[in-house]
Amino acid sequence: MAPDTWRRYAILAEGAFGELPSKTAMGVISYGRDLVVAVIDSRQAGRNVSEWLGPEHDIPVVATLGEALARPSVARQPTALLIGIAPQGGRIPPDWRAIIVEAIERGLDVVSGLHELITDDPELSALAATHGVELVDHRRATERHEVASGRAHRPGCHVILTVGTDCAIGKMTVALELRKAALAAGLSAVFVPTGQTGIMIEGWGVSIDRVISDFANGTAEWLVERAEDMGDWIFVEGQGAIDHPAYSAVTLGLIHGSTPHAMVLAHQPGRHSHHGWEGQDGRGSPLKSVVENIRLYETVAGAVAPSKVAAVALNTAHLSDHEARAEIERVAAETGLPVDDPYRFGPDRLFARLRSFLEAGGR
Amino acid sequence: MAPDTWRRYAILAEGAFGELPSKTAMGVISYGRDLVVAVIDSRQAGRNVSEWLGPEHDIPVVATLGEALARPSVARQPTALLIGIAPQGGRIPPDWRAIIVEAIERGLDVVSGLHELITDDPELSALAATHGVELVDHRRATERHEVASGRAHRPGCHVILTVGTDCAIGKMTVALELRKAALAAGLSAVFVPTGQTGIMIEGWGVSIDRVISDFANGTAEWLVERAEDMGDWIFVEGQGAIDHPAYSAVTLGLIHGSTPHAMVLAHQPGRHSHHGWEGQDGRGSPLKSVVENIRLYETVAGAVAPSKVAAVALNTAHLSDHEARAEIERVAAETGLPVDDPYRFGPDRLFARLRSFLEAGGR
Repeated sequence: MAPDTWRRYAILAEGAFGELPSKTAMGVISYGRDLVVAVIDSRQAGRNVSEWLGPEHDIPVVATLGEALARPSVARQPTALLIGIAPQGGRIPPDWRAIIVEAIERGLDVVSGLHELITDDPELSALAATHGVELVDHRRATERHEVASGRAHRPGCHVILTVGTDCAIGKMTVALELRKAALAAGLSAVFVPTGQTGIMIEGWGVSIDRVISDFANGTAEWLVERAEDMGDWIFVEGQGAIDHPAYSAVTLGLIHGSTPHAMVLAHQPGRHSHHGWEGQDGRGSPLKSVVENIRLYETVAGAVAPSKVAAVALNTAHLSDHEARAEIERVAAETGLPVDDPYRFGPDRLFARLRSFLEAGGR
Repeated sequence: MAPDTWRRYAILAEGAFGELPSKTAMGVISYGRDLVVAVIDSRQAGRNVSEWLGPEHDIPVVATLGEALARPSVARQPTALLIGIAPQGGRIPPDWRAIIVEAIERGLDVVSGLHELITDDPELSALAATHGVELVDHRRATERHEVASGRAHRPGCHVILTVGTDCAIGKMTVALELRKAALAAGLSAVFVPTGQTGIMIEGWGVSIDRVISDFANGTAEWLVERAEDMGDWIFVEGQGAIDHPAYSAVTLGLIHGSTPHAMVLAHQPGRHSHHGWEGQDGRGSPLKSVVENIRLYETVAGAVAPSKVAAVALNTAHLSDHEARAEIERVAAETGLPVDDPYRFGPDRLFARLRSFLEAGGR
């Protein structure tokens, strides 16, 4: 994407900003190349994104699209509305439709990563044509009807897949942080987006959860093949969790399709139940321990190609520095693996350990 | 489907009849309710289906559609052409297109279960409209965008999923045979079709491999929910294999979506490598032992809901009676489970063992 086509986003996160469903908003703000000029969430209006993500993200939270468009500097007015949530099932909240219509009528492109495709909506498509704006569905998957072929990785490549004890636990962030560390170490490194937010950030990729299930493994294989033309250190964004009652098929397609040399397990201390998943009886679905997860992922991956969990990445955002370091020590002792919070304490140490493991031929 | 809408099929299996890719033809002939009046395979022309499937299937194999239509009795002339193969990737073989066009021009409906949807083909659709015939794509999946909710099974139901050491190894047949035994025992029993052939046979179901991967688990859950309204003994047709490099995502979606009370493992003695899957290096992908498969399926299923492999169904078609019985004994000794070939020796014994296990609360 050339810089002159970059957009200025107002991110719609009504009622959700700062919470888990707004992980798309958070990811695009933290890692994306397009400028974010406003977040829309009437519940949080008047606050600033810097309160959540640090001083380098000076972005106002406003109550309405009108407010975002009324900013005095044109360079701080949005040119596009980005749907900033990733709800279960991927539908557009019904009361957001009026805001999308307003955006189109006021000349903004609309960018979405939801299953409910805006480009398939006749009313929105017609309106967009009338107003000369673009609708973008990042979740519309490349229509590749190829099953996995079992190709070998290019010699010299290291393929690392992030996996998790749950969905929405930081797998994308961990992959992006490790890629950053690999680049900082002077290596050629690639991030492979497999979900809507990663695609919005990176400008390529496929939402693997949108692919016809027969081609999930094959599409993952193909994404890695493409990445092997771009660099040697390949960080594949994981999805879901292997024991998640709703998303495990997506997770397994990525594992068996990408046949990683190593996996990095993402976990959030203190999370005890699968996110947003209560089950009909309301009992939810308890998370397994980190050790049980490691065993399960290695067993399942190994059914097709051997792969070790070579490191654990903890998301310690809710802990104090002291608590975070204690938890990292605890999990390191429990697992015998390199453990860190790469977002909080920087990814370099964890990547260095991962690199040693892989360059020593660990698999 | 009312009897007056039943079709008379000519099954197109050019170059494949009697071999694994023609499993759709074999399944529809063996278990379907529609009449099959001819099989088209020029390589085998002059033979009779009874040579493969026994005297109750007196169906000529002919070289061309023209021959099938030229039979003297109208009641033995086809009213529809059924695409009788299930190739990897699900494309229509290019040289079959002319036969499909001919069928439409001669007034036949065309029924397909391939990924390449005939109803999406503008030329075929236009031609069908001109000639007033129907095109049917059994693989076009119900567009249900619901993730699994974790619903509990209806009390009194027994949900049994067939799984396999490989794809194309008899999972559908085992489920159909066990359903037959349950009906014979006076129980209310349901077969849940999850693939194109099962749907052609049974008249309902969803090709789970066609579903958007995010909804694979949810669709499997929903199919079982529907089945629980139809009967107490529910036999879910399995797909693929959990260690199949290309299809494992589909397999796992079924396991975690249907949360079976028990699994029945299908295996073919003498098959050593995953069917039709050589890998780019030509080394193929070796099958694991029956014991390893049992451990793997129970581990993977148990990540969401505990489920035991309660029986093993062997496909001994290539063995003599003596060899078949010896192999059944051997696997029974090795696994400590009920083992039989339900197609060859009848399903009643295996079902009786499965029933005891489940009625005793085994899970």
